[in-house]
Amino acid sequence: MTSTATALKQTNSSGTLQHLIHLHGLDREFITFLLDKAESYQTPLGQPPARDNILDGHTVANLFFEPSTRTRASFELAAKRLHADVLNLDVNMSSRIKGESLLDTIYTLQAMQVDIFVVRDASAGIPEYITSNVMPHVSVLNAGESDVSHPTQGLLDLLTIRQAKGTLNGLTVTVIGDIAHSRVARSLAEGLNIMGSNQLRLVAPEGLSPDMDHYPGATFTRDIDGALEDADVVMTLRIQRERIKEQSSLMTTHEYLHSYGLTEERASKAKPDAIIMHPGPMNRDVEIAGAVADGPQSVITRQVNNGLAIRMSVLAAIMESRQP
Amino acid sequence: MTSTATALKQTNSSGTLQHLIHLHGLDREFITFLLDKAESYQTPLGQPPARDNILDGHTVANLFFEPSTRTRASFELAAKRLHADVLNLDVNMSSRIKGESLLDTIYTLQAMQVDIFVVRDASAGIPEYITSNVMPHVSVLNAGESDVSHPTQGLLDLLTIRQAKGTLNGLTVTVIGDIAHSRVARSLAEGLNIMGSNQLRLVAPEGLSPDMDHYPGATFTRDIDGALEDADVVMTLRIQRERIKEQSSLMTTHEYLHSYGLTEERASKAKPDAIIMHPGPMNRDVEIAGAVADGPQSVITRQVNNGLAIRMSVLAAIMESRQP
Amino acid sequence: MTSTATALKQTNSSGTLQHLIHLHGLDREFITFLLDKAESYQTPLGQPPARDNILDGHTVANLFFEPSTRTRASFELAAKRLHADVLNLDVNMSSRIKGESLLDTIYTLQAMQVDIFVVRDASAGIPEYITSNVMPHVSVLNAGESDVSHPTQGLLDLLTIRQAKGTLNGLTVTVIGDIAHSRVARSLAEGLNIMGSNQLRLVAPEGLSPDMDHYPGATFTRDIDGALEDADVVMTLRIQRERIKEQSSLMTTHEYLHSYGLTEERASKAKPDAIIMHPGPMNRDVEIAGAVADGPQSVITRQVNNGLAIRMSVLAAIMESRQP
Repeated sequence: MTSTATALKQTNSSGTLQHLIHLHGLDREFITFLLDKAESYQTPLGQPPARDNILDGHTVANLFFEPSTRTRASFELAAKRLHADVLNLDVNMSSRIKGESLLDTIYTLQAMQVDIFVVRDASAGIPEYITSNVMPHVSVLNAGESDVSHPTQGLLDLLTIRQAKGTLNGLTVTVIGDIAHSRVARSLAEGLNIMGSNQLRLVAPEGLSPDMDHYPGATFTRDIDGALEDADVVMTLRIQRERIKEQSSLMTTHEYLHSYGLTEERASKAKPDAIIMHPGPMNRDVEIAGAVADGPQSVITRQVNNGLAIRMSVLAAIMESRQP
Repeated sequence: MTSTATALKQTNSSGTLQHLIHLHGLDREFITFLLDKAESYQTPLGQPPARDNILDGHTVANLFFEPSTRTRASFELAAKRLHADVLNLDVNMSSRIKGESLLDTIYTLQAMQVDIFVVRDASAGIPEYITSNVMPHVSVLNAGESDVSHPTQGLLDLLTIRQAKGTLNGLTVTVIGDIAHSRVARSLAEGLNIMGSNQLRLVAPEGLSPDMDHYPGATFTRDIDGALEDADVVMTLRIQRERIKEQSSLMTTHEYLHSYGLTEERASKAKPDAIIMHPGPMNRDVEIAGAVADGPQSVITRQVNNGLAIRMSVLAAIMESRQP
Repeated sequence: MTSTATALKQTNSSGTLQHLIHLHGLDREFITFLLDKAESYQTPLGQPPARDNILDGHTVANLFFEPSTRTRASFELAAKRLHADVLNLDVNMSSRIKGESLLDTIYTLQAMQVDIFVVRDASAGIPEYITSNVMPHVSVLNAGESDVSHPTQGLLDLLTIRQAKGTLNGLTVTVIGDIAHSRVARSLAEGLNIMGSNQLRLVAPEGLSPDMDHYPGATFTRDIDGALEDADVVMTLRIQRERIKEQSSLMTTHEYLHSYGLTEERASKAKPDAIIMHPGPMNRDVEIAGAVADGPQSVITRQVNNGLAIRMSVLAAIMESRQP
């Protein structure tokens, strides 16, 4: 995938965004533009959400081949607050026939004048495959692709870090958990490398170690305490309960919290003003102690709020690229 | 639950509605205000429905942990006719993890600037639990809670009775069916007690008798014919077919109609101008004869129309409470 | 059904459309009006879709008792682009109780001031049964009825043929596939008979032959090559894979393509400027070769685009019939 992925044109001839499949390929200036635009779509909680009519008369199709409540809700509200018509298509993975049948679905919706496809899929390469087959005026937004890419998550994490730290340069960022299966870690790593000179430390249990080819410049360790030392940002990742529930050969959830979970004691090893992040949904008291998730350093709900603003920003940026 | 329930503040400091979890705690004046407002949202069938832009720019999330076609449709149309953005989240009960995980879902949607949660849940106490955990500017609307409360159903039933009888005082109201499991009967009883001096008569088959602690001032009997005598209002409740299909130990549906169903002969024992109500969906010729459901005294479709108006009224009242 | 069907009044006293259940009963002038109106709702792909506010303040309920992604999406977008409030109700066929229970659902939605029901059902007669039970101001649109009728598909096929051929008279139209179970073929035949003097040729494998009573004036043959000769229009129909997968007694998909599929060689037997149609979704390389589906004579995505325009046209025509 990597070579093809690099070749993908996400921006069109005038340098504006047509597709968003992964963060690599975007430059620092453009990501800064997207983060700034996202902030322009933020209002304090308790006040009416920001709205814009830039997608008025346009149609966004949420094509989710993998179930998701929160990401779909975030994209749906982002599109509606930009005045788009929204079509939700939750397609059971098992009932989809691969290959041309997928394209026929895309061609059909394209013929109904859908302008933007928001695609989530459990298979690597699907969003890019769609991108290479749509008409020139149609855009594709990757809403989560296997363990490969989740660019709006990467952007919302960058925004959250920038808001808390005032910079995206010179930071030490520690990510703990099932890195091997994490599109969240992949997109965050891409973003951090673009935005500045940051130190990324990865920690994963045995059997869930990352392919470090995907993480240039990062370090990997099983020494969680050492990895947390002096960290500015700590992100824990959801661990699939399936991976830990068989007591015979694998850890129990209690053992997982003890060995790799972010307990209060462990969190205190990071910098005193470190922020605690989690992409959600959380397993409380498995990969993260409830007290840490709800503590003063946690920015977890801020991430959610930023996520909606980032999706509005990306949808609006795509729309602007279509202006004559 | 009761003591906690009584302590819940549904209205905010200025006396306006913030949450609607149950009817007790509201006073006669405020319920009259809600019924009047609902009537202001009614137009004759065949004319365009009433609309209002009071929820323009605001977001309503329908969070249904228990399946429901008609109640969800009613809330969805009510919110859309008030110009809200509506998010439908049908969450499979079996896939929900209780407790904090539910709250994380709420916190997530709250961070997306959802203003009003419409919650239906099969477990007692869930709507109130959510209410006690949301931010001060967020509202919770109970759309059906186990066998405990269904306040918008109670309000629509009050409105239906008021429209037919011209009063909510001095009435004899007979409710027949599975009272033991009925949140509809509970909310109606609360409403009738608040609105005036009414006589509530409950009738249920063996094994489905109510806990009379929930029905202060009401009477209970198995003598259905006696309970119908001189009634102004007769409501039959859906009987779960599961409870009657095993012929060996339980009644057949035919036997049920004979013993506890509202037949034409039985309905004639009530006052000549009595109205016949049913919260739907009906099992025709089980708890109610088809001829009675469709007869001139039936107000069953009127209840549905009033339901939509009541939901608009409650949503608008909540919105008004948010005005500065 | 036939005699009842003929008796159904689809137009009201002023000659405008109230219901659309089947094409027979409509006249050439009115179908021409619907096709012209549909064209007025078309814009080139890549430009914003046409919009109209004629359904502003009105409610369309999509009541799909049979699953459908593309037809439901088409109706949903058509209604939204006409500014309707749209209610999607995907009802599991197995959970629906026939007869009165269906009517209670209709009565309930009618009491919520739903104006137009878009109904898809696997049972013959259901849309008409609903039509004969709704209030005078309510409209019913058949979105696919068993193997009986699919009128908006018939109209979109007529529009597609008219756009390509410049006429709906004097054409030779060949339809190949599972005619026995095809509501698409039925509605196309009705439309072609109304619009002009056309020759309809039907081809089906053994066991899937049509009841020719439904196809007055048409011819039936198993000689696919002969049926294609000099055809102006060739339509292939989806074959249910269930019917061909058992290798022992039935054909394999490869054998099907060989015997009844529209291969490039076979397609070349039609007129050089013949158009190739398929109602979708396609089984590529089963009933139609991929190269034919994507070839220069194919108008398959045009059909989809026309489908949305036709649904806007029909919804708008129904709305116009309600003006005082």
